[in-house]
Order: sequence, then C-alpha cells, then structure tokens
Amino acid sequence: MSKGLPKRSEDYSLWYNELVKRADLAENSPVRGCMVIKPYGYSIWEKMQAQLDKMFKETGHVNAYFPLFIPKSYLSKEAKHVEGFAKECAVVTHYRLKNSEDGKSVIVDPEAKLEEELIVRPTSETVIWSTYKNWIQSYRDLPLLVNQWANVVRWEMRTRLFLRTTEFLWQEGHTAHATKEEAIAETVQMMNIYAQFAEEHMALPVVKGVKSENERFAGAEDTYCIEAMMQDGKALQAGTSHFLGQNFAKAFDVKFATKEGGLEYVWGTSWGASTRLMGALIMAHSDDNGLVLPPKLAPIQVVIIPIYKTDEESKNISEKANEIITKLRSKGISVKFDDRDTHKPGWKFAEYELKGVPVRIAMGPRDLENNSVEIARRDTLSKEIVNLEGVKIEEYISELLDIIQKAIFEKALNFKHEMTTEVDSWKEFESLLENKGGFLSAHWDGTNETEEKIKELTKATIRCIPIDRKTEAGKCILTGKPSEGRVLFARAY
Amino acid sequence: MSKGLPKRSEDYSLWYNELVKRADLAENSPVRGCMVIKPYGYSIWEKMQAQLDKMFKETGHVNAYFPLFIPKSYLSKEAKHVEGFAKECAVVTHYRLKNSEDGKSVIVDPEAKLEEELIVRPTSETVIWSTYKNWIQSYRDLPLLVNQWANVVRWEMRTRLFLRTTEFLWQEGHTAHATKEEAIAETVQMMNIYAQFAEEHMALPVVKGVKSENERFAGAEDTYCIEAMMQDGKALQAGTSHFLGQNFAKAFDVKFATKEGGLEYVWGTSWGASTRLMGALIMAHSDDNGLVLPPKLAPIQVVIIPIYKTDEESKNISEKANEIITKLRSKGISVKFDDRDTHKPGWKFAEYELKGVPVRIAMGPRDLENNSVEIARRDTLSKEIVNLEGVKIEEYISELLDIIQKAIFEKALNFKHEMTTEVDSWKEFESLLENKGGFLSAHWDGTNETEEKIKELTKATIRCIPIDRKTEAGKCILTGKPSEGRVLFARAY
Ligand SMILES: [Zn+2]
Ligand SMILES: [Zn+2]
Repeated sequence: MSKGLPKRSEDYSLWYNELVKRADLAENSPVRGCMVIKPYGYSIWEKMQAQLDKMFKETGHVNAYFPLFIPKSYLSKEAKHVEGFAKECAVVTHYRLKNSEDGKSVIVDPEAKLEEELIVRPTSETVIWSTYKNWIQSYRDLPLLVNQWANVVRWEMRTRLFLRTTEFLWQEGHTAHATKEEAIAETVQMMNIYAQFAEEHMALPVVKGVKSENERFAGAEDTYCIEAMMQDGKALQAGTSHFLGQNFAKAFDVKFATKEGGLEYVWGTSWGASTRLMGALIMAHSDDNGLVLPPKLAPIQVVIIPIYKTDEESKNISEKANEIITKLRSKGISVKFDDRDTHKPGWKFAEYELKGVPVRIAMGPRDLENNSVEIARRDTLSKEIVNLEGVKIEEYISELLDIIQKAIFEKALNFKHEMTTEVDSWKEFESLLENKGGFLSAHWDGTNETEEKIKELTKATIRCIPIDRKTEAGKCILTGKPSEGRVLFARAY
Repeated sequence: MSKGLPKRSEDYSLWYNELVKRADLAENSPVRGCMVIKPYGYSIWEKMQAQLDKMFKETGHVNAYFPLFIPKSYLSKEAKHVEGFAKECAVVTHYRLKNSEDGKSVIVDPEAKLEEELIVRPTSETVIWSTYKNWIQSYRDLPLLVNQWANVVRWEMRTRLFLRTTEFLWQEGHTAHATKEEAIAETVQMMNIYAQFAEEHMALPVVKGVKSENERFAGAEDTYCIEAMMQDGKALQAGTSHFLGQNFAKAFDVKFATKEGGLEYVWGTSWGASTRLMGALIMAHSDDNGLVLPPKLAPIQVVIIPIYKTDEESKNISEKANEIITKLRSKGISVKFDDRDTHKPGWKFAEYELKGVPVRIAMGPRDLENNSVEIARRDTLSKEIVNLEGVKIEEYISELLDIIQKAIFEKALNFKHEMTTEVDSWKEFESLLENKGGFLSAHWDGTNETEEKIKELTKATIRCIPIDRKTEAGKCILTGKPSEGRVLFARAY
C-alpha cells in the first residue's frame, strides 16, 4: 500500500527522491538543476512563507523588491563576497534573439550584446546596498528593516530537489543600523526567529550557533545559523543570519549623519531561509509509508474517507460527514472529504499516508449505527474508534492536532539528543562518523587548517559553535592543541 | 505643501514619474529598465496579491512554481508564440565567472558556455506545457487549474516605472481542460475576476472585451481583456485572459484519454495581471497633491496626527488617540499614529496626502476640551469637526472608508463615461483624439489592414471589442466598408 516507496534503511537517498516525487511535492524540470514545485509542495511552502512573513512583520520588518539582475562589476565591490559568489552564476550576455537563416529556429542576435554582462542574483547584498546609498542619509533613516521574497540562482553541478537546486525560492532580509550593537542584536534576533519557526511550526529541533570562519557567508563578519539533524545522521543548515559589519557599507559608500553631527559607515545584517526548509521538513519526520507533516504546516489537516457499498450508505455517511466538516471548519481546521468513487478506501488510505495528512477519519455503515468514527494518526499510524456520543468532535480533533504537533517535535528532539555525542578521541570520532553519524561534540583548536584537515579526512565540517556551549578547556580532537570549548561536527547536506 | 509635485495639467507624464518616486512607491534601479519596488509601494502590491490570490483559490485554482529559465528551443515550438516573445528577452549564455588576469575584476569564463542558451522567462506557457505533458494522461487529470506568482523579463527599450519595465512581477494562470467549451468558460471567468477585482478593490471601472487579431497574445486563439481609462485620456490594459485552443497542447504533444476511450489534445487557457496594475491604480485616482488610494488597498487607512505645544497636551492627546486606535483596530482598520516630534503637523498633513492615506484624524487641545476630532478625507480634501459624544468612532470611520471607496469608484466611473464618445466621422475621430482622448466607440471593417492604417495615422489602437456591444450595422470609420458593430479605439499605455 505504500506504493513501493523505497525503505529508508535500504537507500535513504533514493527514499527521499522518490518521496518528493510521489507525494507530489516537486520534480525535476527540463532545465537542468531547476525544479518544478508542484501544487501540493507549494501549498506547504505557502504556509511556511505566511508564518515567517508574519514573524518578520511583527518584529518591524517590511517587504520590498529589488532587481533580478546584478551588474557584473557590482559583485567585485566587496572583496570576499566576489570570491564566494562569482564562481557559479548564470550570466546574461545578450538581450535579443533572431530567426536563424533557414528560418527553422531562433538564434542569439550577436548585435544584441550587453556592454556589461548581468548576473542573475545569487543573493542581493550588492544591488541592495547600492540602493541603500540613496535611502540613507541620516540617523533618522535608520534602522532600515527590509525583507524580500524572491528567486535566486546559484549554478550547481550536483543538484537534489529542494536541498540543492540551481534556482530556489527564498527570503532575504537586509537591514541597516546606526550601531554595531544594534546590528548584532538584529542578527541574533533573526537567528532566534528562525529557530522558533523551525521548532514551533516545522516541529524541528535545532541547534543555534555561530559558524567558523571557513563556513562564514562571503562578506560577513559573523554568520549565525540553525542546524537540524536528519534521520540519516546528516546535519542540515536551516537558516542563516549574517552580521555584515561595515563591509557592504564601505564597498558601496553608505554613510549616515549621526545625531552628534558626525559621518559614519552604516552597520549591516542579512538573513535568509529558503525552499531548502522543505527538504528539512520532509527528511526530518517522514517514514517508509510517506510524508509526515506537522499539523501547523499541513495543507490538509484532516481527511474524511467514507466506506460504503450501497448508494444509500454513501448518502447517509455523506450527511454525517458534512456535519463533522462544518464543525471542524468552524475551528479553522482544514478538512478534505474524499468521496470519489473512482478509488477504493484502501487506495485512499495509502494515498493520504503518502501525502502526510496528520489525521484520517474513516466512516462506514457500522460507525453510522454506533455513532462512531475511526480516527487514525499519521505520525504513529495508530487508530482508535471514537464514540461521538457527548464528544465535541471539533475540540477532540483540535486537541489531537496539538498532540500530534508536539509528538512529532518530541520524537525529533529525542532523536537529536540520541544523535549528539561528546567525543574525546580521534579514533572514536572517525568510528562514530562511519557507524552512527549525527552531531559530534568535540574540541577543536580554532584553526582553519585543522578544520580543513578534518573535512578532508572525514567529510565532516564544523556545523557551528553552539550559542549555549559551556566554557570548557580541552584538547583538539585532531591535533591535541588547546581548545576553549566544544564545537559541533557533522557530515551535512 | 505638495512638495512641488508637478501639475497633471502641465505635464502628466512628469507628474506620474515624480509621484511614483516621491510617494515612495518605486524607483529606477542601477540595472537599466529594472525597478526597485520600495516598501510602501510593495505593501500596496501585497494587498493586491492577497485579494487576487483569494479570488483565484475560491474558484478552484492552486499555486505552483515553474523554472525561471526556458531552453531556447522551447520558444520555437509554438510558431506564433516565438514571433511574439523571442525578440526582446534576456539570454543566459554562460554559467561561471572567473578572475581577470590582472586580478582586479571578474570576467565571463569562456569555458563555461552553455550548450543551449537559456531564456529568462518572458511568460511561461512553453515550460509549463512541457511539464503538463507528464501531468496529464486521462480525463481524470483534468481540469488542471494552476497559477504562479513570479517575476518575468521582457527586454524593453523605453521603460516607465510600473507601466513598462524590463523585469516585472505578475501572476500567470495556466489551465488545461477536456473541452473547448470548458476552456472558453475559464477564460471568460478569469476576465470577470480581473474586472471584479479592478472595480471592487482598485475602484477602477473597466470595459470587458475581446482583442482584435492584431492585439492578440502570441499563441492564443482569443484574448479577453479589461481596459481602463486614465486621467490623461489614454487607455490602460489591466489584465488579459487567453483562450489558447489546442495550440500549446499540439506544440508539446499533450493528449488525454477521454472517458469514451479516445485520445485527444487538451484545451488551454492562460491569464495574467502584473505590477502594471500599480501604474493603473496611481494614474486613475491621484491628484496634484499626491496619491489617492481606495481604502481597500491602502496599507494605512487612517493616520492620526496630534497637534500640541506642551508635553502635557501631548500626553493627554496621546491618551485619547490610543483609545481611538484600539477601537479602530478592533474593526480591522489599519491606523498609524504619527506623534514624531521631528516634524510639524503641516509637514505631516502634506506627507500623508502625498502617500494617499484615505482618512486623516487631527487632534489638538481644543478638540480634547470639546471631545471632538477633525476628520479629513483624502479623496475630496474635505474636512469636518466631529463631536465624539455618542458617536462610535470605529463605526463612523468604517462607514466613511466604505463611502470613500464608493466615491473614488463613482468619480472614475463618471470620468470613464465622459471620456467615451461615439464617433461616426473620420474627421471627428482625429479631432477627438487630438483634443480630448478617451475611448472612441467607432465602426471598423474588421480587417488588420484598416486597424494598422488607423494606428499609423493616429497612434490609436483597438482596445477591445466590448463584450456587451450591441449588434449595430454601420460603416467603417476609415474605409466606409460595412461593419457589424462598434469597437473601442484609444491611445494606450
Ligand atoms: Zn550552526
Ligand atoms: Zn479590452
């Protein structure tokens, strides 16, 4: 009944790819590396967007829109930024096509060559800071708290649906501040908002931390992030928030008149989360039967499936179902009643399991007689017969959805705890990576060289220096040199 | 106090450009032809999006997302489509940059040339129909009712903020149906939804009609549209809905198994509305003092401005204002309280007039004594003192916002009537175009040649053949040949 989904234990990677396609979340497009986000997948992304957008606005941010194209020369203005982003990008060189000589196709018109090539934005710091130069004159123009929802393009050689695609959808916040302290506070605030969103809405526990210099955003002074643990023991970065210092202000000459009459460079931040979150959501909770969605992000929270043989049974069940639907909708619960006669109940059960609908209500003739329904939970695959006598079904289901939301989070939280190991010897470090995976909490001497060496030897990277780590003197897991505290290593998506 | 906005009567075009910039709606970007939509402008667009999205979903449509890039060869698959869209588009030819030899800049890496160039989507029929081929097998897969919110690029030589930009934001619906009748019904339905949105939300009266062959979408069998009249007598197309026949199904070989066991090509529609609507909204209602926004699309519906000299007055007024704000917000009215001490009340009055806030409430010490407020309407610029004794302010304002919404529509409707003239002689036709503008309702012999000749002579085009036109035999305004009914001519944006 699971439509032959591969098992996680046999081929996790294949399981993921097949699940994304069969659950109608996304598929590869004819353009290499770009995806089509299908309606069911997009409706989950819309719920994510709506919630994040609300949280951004509640903290004083406004949305705007900046151009898709960036003049090539802009990329070079911030020295480290260009190193990070110039490598893999889509370059527009011409602005017109014309008919080929044989008239059978179109070709690029060589006369329509751009004087300066345009880059399809891989991220928008440069074009936005060049705009901020005109928007910011005085301390009265600060802080500037702007976000944009947009598509971006980073040319990727190896792509995977949602996790790494050439084009993806995201939001990018770009803020400007009068003081360093305020900019750092904003950076931390946005990391906390991402963490809150991940935990409360995606039911995804995360570690909050700071990136090592190696993993820092190109052009940032510090990158804060949230890191989540997937079921195969690999980590996934689910959101980043960058303290940009005055780097972009200096690159684009953005100064402001202070209250005291001086002239100073502006302090900046940027922060983003993308359709990668879809990958994290899918990988973190789903099972061999298909998707498992936390109720807060499920486009359909409850599906009702009638089980009948005769037309009269069908009619009676529909009547009862419609009463329940009205009650559930009055509580804001999204319900689908699938009374198609083209598919059998068993097929429908498997279909909604695959699609991750949190609650399934089945109603047959005997339920009608007994005034009962069968209620099944997607997360635990457990079922119970509920007698509706004296039961307010809308409250029952509403509470059940809360219980499921919490249960999915708790399960993921336990898994994360299980998959976080303190390691003090290199042998154990290597062995754990090979045999168990997960987060390895280990001492590190703080140098780029050691970090790179460890990556070379094990493919593990420093996911972050956790915000809440204890100060604890120790010896680097590889070199034995002194360390100020543990950092989290993992192989990662 | 109007910050020196140019007058409409003196230079309508300059008035528009300046208004867009000074009201913080949009500005030109460093990339030629692309715009930056500023937060205030974007917040109006968000309101438009939310309402349209709601109307699309209420009629059974779902959102999805398709790639930004289209392989060049796809454009050529539908013969007329390529004629219309291949001309002015952004072409991606390379996927990597590298450091220049002197190390001072980045250049396009000649080794990273794409085998097949990619076009930045000017519209998505081709990539979507190539995807639909895999989504549609049987009549059970139909209808497919999909919409996408996206950015598109059409290389424009002469651009104007919102009205014509190289990159713009829009939604594009793409539906697939089993029968011709159903596809036509969808096309008409979407035209009606655009008309309803324009009239009820934008307060913008429109003419519904069908395009002549000349003005038809490249690849469509019929283009339905809504046309609005701007204050300078020029028409503006505010939304189009295309009946695609089986053209794209044939180009991309999209067939379905019918109920009866046959195999047939699918029928298609596409329909779109864009940030151009922002241009229409601004041009239709605004005046020499600035923007006039219909309350349903105003990000700030009410602004409250305190007038005080002493700190005590300020404190007392704030207290009273906060009571009013709480009441207004309880009715879902968006209110801003501008108590900044960095600007004088007169400056603020002008500022919110410029920004088009529908209702301004001013409160001074005398108002406090008398338990009154001064309420000003942006649309009529009229003011009244309202004694609050026994008045429910939230209901008073709520009704006033409805009255304003209707008044703005009525004014535009009267203007549209005034600016629509039945014309029966060529001389009058030319003279009206020169001296008055507006819609000219005139007979036309139905040929492309005549339409083109009229355009050449007068710059007027056929805006549409109105849906509700009477059958009325007549003689073509230019050639005197027989005509079946009047069509609407106008100069247009
Ligand atoms: Zn981290
Ligand atoms: Zn028309």
